[in-house]
Amino acid sequence: MSMSATHTVACWASSVSEENLPDNVAHHGRRLIIDYLAAATAGSTTELSQKLREHHRVVEPGTRATAIAGPRLTAGAAAFVNGAAAHGLELDDGYTPGSVHPGACVIPAVLAVGEATGATLGAVAAAVIVGVEITTRIAEAGHPNVLKAGFHNTPVAGVFGAAAAVSNLLRLSPEATAGSLGLAGSYAGGLREYHAHASEVKRLHTGKAAQDGLKCAELAAQGIYGPSTVLEGENGYFKAFAHGNWSPEVLLDNLGQSWTSLRTYVKPYPCCRHLHGAIDAARALRRAETFELGDIETMRLGTFDLAARLNRAEPTTVMEAQFSLPFAISAALKFGSIDLRTFEPERLFDDEVQQLSRQVTVVLDEAAQQAYPRERAAQLSITLKNGQVLETRVHQPLGEPDNPLSDDDIEEKFRNLATPVIGEARVEGVLEAAWSGSDLTALTSALSE
Amino acid sequence: MSMSATHTVACWASSVSEENLPDNVAHHGRRLIIDYLAAATAGSTTELSQKLREHHRVVEPGTRATAIAGPRLTAGAAAFVNGAAAHGLELDDGYTPGSVHPGACVIPAVLAVGEATGATLGAVAAAVIVGVEITTRIAEAGHPNVLKAGFHNTPVAGVFGAAAAVSNLLRLSPEATAGSLGLAGSYAGGLREYHAHASEVKRLHTGKAAQDGLKCAELAAQGIYGPSTVLEGENGYFKAFAHGNWSPEVLLDNLGQSWTSLRTYVKPYPCCRHLHGAIDAARALRRAETFELGDIETMRLGTFDLAARLNRAEPTTVMEAQFSLPFAISAALKFGSIDLRTFEPERLFDDEVQQLSRQVTVVLDEAAQQAYPRERAAQLSITLKNGQVLETRVHQPLGEPDNPLSDDDIEEKFRNLATPVIGEARVEGVLEAAWSGSDLTALTSALSE
Repeated sequence: MSMSATHTVACWASSVSEENLPDNVAHHGRRLIIDYLAAATAGSTTELSQKLREHHRVVEPGTRATAIAGPRLTAGAAAFVNGAAAHGLELDDGYTPGSVHPGACVIPAVLAVGEATGATLGAVAAAVIVGVEITTRIAEAGHPNVLKAGFHNTPVAGVFGAAAAVSNLLRLSPEATAGSLGLAGSYAGGLREYHAHASEVKRLHTGKAAQDGLKCAELAAQGIYGPSTVLEGENGYFKAFAHGNWSPEVLLDNLGQSWTSLRTYVKPYPCCRHLHGAIDAARALRRAETFELGDIETMRLGTFDLAARLNRAEPTTVMEAQFSLPFAISAALKFGSIDLRTFEPERLFDDEVQQLSRQVTVVLDEAAQQAYPRERAAQLSITLKNGQVLETRVHQPLGEPDNPLSDDDIEEKFRNLATPVIGEARVEGVLEAAWSGSDLTALTSALSE
Repeated sequence: MSMSATHTVACWASSVSEENLPDNVAHHGRRLIIDYLAAATAGSTTELSQKLREHHRVVEPGTRATAIAGPRLTAGAAAFVNGAAAHGLELDDGYTPGSVHPGACVIPAVLAVGEATGATLGAVAAAVIVGVEITTRIAEAGHPNVLKAGFHNTPVAGVFGAAAAVSNLLRLSPEATAGSLGLAGSYAGGLREYHAHASEVKRLHTGKAAQDGLKCAELAAQGIYGPSTVLEGENGYFKAFAHGNWSPEVLLDNLGQSWTSLRTYVKPYPCCRHLHGAIDAARALRRAETFELGDIETMRLGTFDLAARLNRAEPTTVMEAQFSLPFAISAALKFGSIDLRTFEPERLFDDEVQQLSRQVTVVLDEAAQQAYPRERAAQLSITLKNGQVLETRVHQPLGEPDNPLSDDDIEEKFRNLATPVIGEARVEGVLEAAWSGSDLTALTSALSE
């Protein structure tokens, strides 16, 4: 008889090490860490992140791990605070076929335990790959059924990835790793109700997955296990969260040979990934064509269904703006790109951007819908007052695996986002350690307050 | 327009105080606390509880709250360790119409925050009532749909109760209380897959709900909220966990006038509540009739469906025995009752009990099934070798609201279970404080290591 799904995943997760990972995969682990640090360092400056740091300084002070730009806390609290920061500005990585953000769930857990246990950066990068691989595969195997059931893929899949990654870092046996996944099934949670009220709880979901996954692995290290049939069982994860509709093949096929973790995207703009094709299209037309913003009569954006719903013309909060196609297109046309300054009040409430936003019509594009999630296509048509129509179509937004950011681009993203927070000298120290170093403390000490 | 369900619950939860609770309800809060302490103090001695204490002593040491028979920890860690202990021996309270164990989710969270903030015992008892009321109503409103979906009612409903109770204790506004419930929706989790492998994760579910509910309330106190439509929303709790099948009336009708928290049961025997009617029946026949165990030819137990499934004849672990009708009946016949000693190896593997267990047939009793959950009926028929049939029917096992334990019985339960752990002097100190005192520290200091 073949092994159960949970056992197969656990055996693989416990078998991975720095030594047996292919070089390109190990290198990708370090790319993911730098991209995570870019998102988390910038995200550490939000009001929410500041509140979380100050609260945990009181209720969970510790010595085991560092909150970015903050105090030392318990490892669990550091994973929570940093995980929330990494998702705090919609800057973190993602995996389109699973509609999931793996890095912000997995990496803060691994870094916190790595710091607490004195792990090397190479071991940390290998554990990150394990966690991202499992998060992306679990999310894709249940997508879109988990989402339709009302759950947020990121925390419910991410807690398994974080548990597996920390189990790998702690060198747990296959049995104990399965036990940590068994516990993670009971810690899977996170509703999509935040969509109704733009609630900040979405930011916490990544931190929750990181903290809970870390806890599950540390408990399993003490011999406390959950059921070893947690994924496939009669009352297991896929039954409860996907109503039993899932793909064992997506979860298991070619595990350790074909790497979903190499197929995550890196975000160049701090907003919902569904907006990025439209932003690329707006930037392309602005560069290629000569027109004034006042020349525009109407704009029409055609895209796949999940994106086309993000059609709010007049956002009033940062989070609403981060999920608004009309705002993203208009701001990209006026300011040339989208970055953190775009969401400051001066630009968020810019009269001309608001005027342009009202000229945008968002429609479902059937070809884009057919191609999703293989492509995240967006077709932008701008009709000028003189009747001229400017048009372009983006198939893969910048940062997708088939249109990737280079290592230099990722370094640049980290420099841009982290320098205002920790300063130039520390930024260069982090980069040197993260690309090629072994000493994790060189990295974590540069990130502390 | 009427208020939303979440708002109604939050407004009520924040309105309750020691001063405005009816006397009998306030007194019941203290009964619940003593019964919880009985379960948690006995449960603190299990191997699992010892592991949890020692682990958290390392990873979450603190000053804010006490682990029973253990060190001071962070408030969250104390709630986790104590909540798991309270459910560790199947000794804790429950609410039949919701198939839920509210006390072990709510009370450790309230006690930990009460200790951390210097609350009075009267305020603690009022907060406990709030939490138990909300846990039982949420569980009943979604029962049995949440269970059929694969989730364990206790942690998924209990996290809301714990959040509401701690919000009450912290005197949060209605808005902030709704915000804490909004966060609790994302912390709702806990699969029933433990049934497949008798996994210890079931013991953790109560601790998880306590720790997470506490966290949600403390974050809400910092102004960090989840969505205020978390219960009824399109992607809210009842949609995701009950597939939209729930009863707003059960949740909301007569809230603050008709008290579900007065309708919880107290367990006289440390095993699954579904076995208690059968144990009462076996004890009644043993007392009323004269026969030797060797006279028994066969036994037949008829009961409602959920109980009738617990028909394992030869349990090999404590948890299997705690869920075995044949074992429970046989052990009650041989030893006169069921207590913690029943599950020690000498009695668990007693030859005569094993022989008797094999003589028990468990069947579905249609009348019992019709009456469940109003009744937990059990009909026991013992056929002797001489052809005589001894028979009795239990409608409400001892400890149900309509067949309650007295205050003296609950004191006795606490004395029996806690004296071996903390000694007679401390036991009396706890009882004096818990029944009538105001000083919470008199209670918590008597429980520390």
